[in-house]
Amino acid sequence: MASLFIKKLERICRKNESLVCVGLDVDMNRIPTFLHDVGEPVLTFNRAIIDATHDLVCAYKLNIAFYEVLGAEGLQQFRKTVDHIPDDVIKIVDAKRGDIGNTARMYAKSCFEYYGGDAVTASPYLGRDSLQPFLDYEEKCTFVLCLTSNPGSKDFQYLSLGGKTLYQLVAENVNRWNEKRNCGLVVGATHPEELKKVREIAPELPFLIPGIGAQGGDVGQTVRFGTDKKGERAIINSSRGIIYASAGKDFADAARAKTKELREAINTWRS
Amino acid sequence: MASLFIKKLERICRKNESLVCVGLDVDMNRIPTFLHDVGEPVLTFNRAIIDATHDLVCAYKLNIAFYEVLGAEGLQQFRKTVDHIPDDVIKIVDAKRGDIGNTARMYAKSCFEYYGGDAVTASPYLGRDSLQPFLDYEEKCTFVLCLTSNPGSKDFQYLSLGGKTLYQLVAENVNRWNEKRNCGLVVGATHPEELKKVREIAPELPFLIPGIGAQGGDVGQTVRFGTDKKGERAIINSSRGIIYASAGKDFADAARAKTKELREAINTWRS
Repeated sequence: MASLFIKKLERICRKNESLVCVGLDVDMNRIPTFLHDVGEPVLTFNRAIIDATHDLVCAYKLNIAFYEVLGAEGLQQFRKTVDHIPDDVIKIVDAKRGDIGNTARMYAKSCFEYYGGDAVTASPYLGRDSLQPFLDYEEKCTFVLCLTSNPGSKDFQYLSLGGKTLYQLVAENVNRWNEKRNCGLVVGATHPEELKKVREIAPELPFLIPGIGAQGGDVGQTVRFGTDKKGERAIINSSRGIIYASAGKDFADAARAKTKELREAINTWRS
Repeated sequence: MASLFIKKLERICRKNESLVCVGLDVDMNRIPTFLHDVGEPVLTFNRAIIDATHDLVCAYKLNIAFYEVLGAEGLQQFRKTVDHIPDDVIKIVDAKRGDIGNTARMYAKSCFEYYGGDAVTASPYLGRDSLQPFLDYEEKCTFVLCLTSNPGSKDFQYLSLGGKTLYQLVAENVNRWNEKRNCGLVVGATHPEELKKVREIAPELPFLIPGIGAQGGDVGQTVRFGTDKKGERAIINSSRGIIYASAGKDFADAARAKTKELREAINTWRS
């Protein structure tokens, strides 16, 4: 039985024929300067991007760090942004939280109830009991960091433990913890060979795949190795490559063009 | 050369003759009910606890999850709480953040500048480049999760990689990354034997040690194995055991009594 999240994901991916996730990781210093004069610049920027792209994506991912740094005001803009996303599109709260049980419950409540996410990202380092409060939200999805897209992923994730690397062991464990069909994995597009291995370990889990675009991940390999056997269950994120496509008045149109381009590049490889 | 943080830590530990950190991980459902009627209940609670204990501690640790769950209002109370802590006492923002470089910069800015921490907790999973933006704040301290106090610490932290466990490798790496003398480690009191091993790996690093009290860690072993050779550089945290010592009007006095008791138990073992 597919979970509510998986059904929602399938529905929107098919409706919009898209595996694209737009990352609304919005840095005040990089949005068009004319927006600095409006009341809620990040929200205004986000609404324009959402209006211009929502029929081309399956999901939006909001990295909470970019809003938290703006203080209480930033968090209000986070919530209002989530409210502006159409109901049938997946909302991912990219928080990468990881803490002991009684604290993780607070984070899960914040991410799913206060911030309104359909899904969240979480760190595996503290183990299963730190993830359980997130997994208790059966209708949501928890994407656990497995292999990240940054150079530092080599420091610990690639360490070998009796023939298996740490990221493989994370994938195996999360795949086993997927009793309610509400687990997912974060696997960076910058490691195509490893992405393939993780897909073999977890053939049915949804993957959140960052690292396309600014970080250099290859679209073709990401689609071939990251999707499931039906060419689905991969949410391929691009943030900077889409939202900063233009620094002018046409920023939303430019974002639409880049989103369309990525959607088509992905779909070419799916078929 | 000791860093500014290490000097501040030494100064307050000696002044107050204390290694005690009080964890202001304040759950609205557990504070005395009469406080629910005041304007900012968590802040009111915290101020009373701080007023009653600040001469007995070296640090306060605020877990951001407990404030974030209260929304923008909670984050204001977080900041006002930090503002209420005397300047010479260490303020630890317990955030356990871990994200790629450009995002980690946002988190570091939030924790050190917006929330006013002298120190922060961070996750090692994404490797060195995810920690670097925190370490760029040379006068602050970044406590990296090494061995956590929860049962799930066994899931990954104890995995053996070529004869060494993951938590040992984290300790070795962080000890090497301590070029600016601004790294620390989080090591749970619930693992005394392992605490000893980590202290051998990193003889000079400050340790933030949770797990005393509600979680069952032993004070004697924590002091013997967790402090440096001078009996210092361990910040021993108790949250629930102190702040919820009484649910009545005397909650602050009860917290003072519990803090004093813990300080004395620790100091007995130090001498």
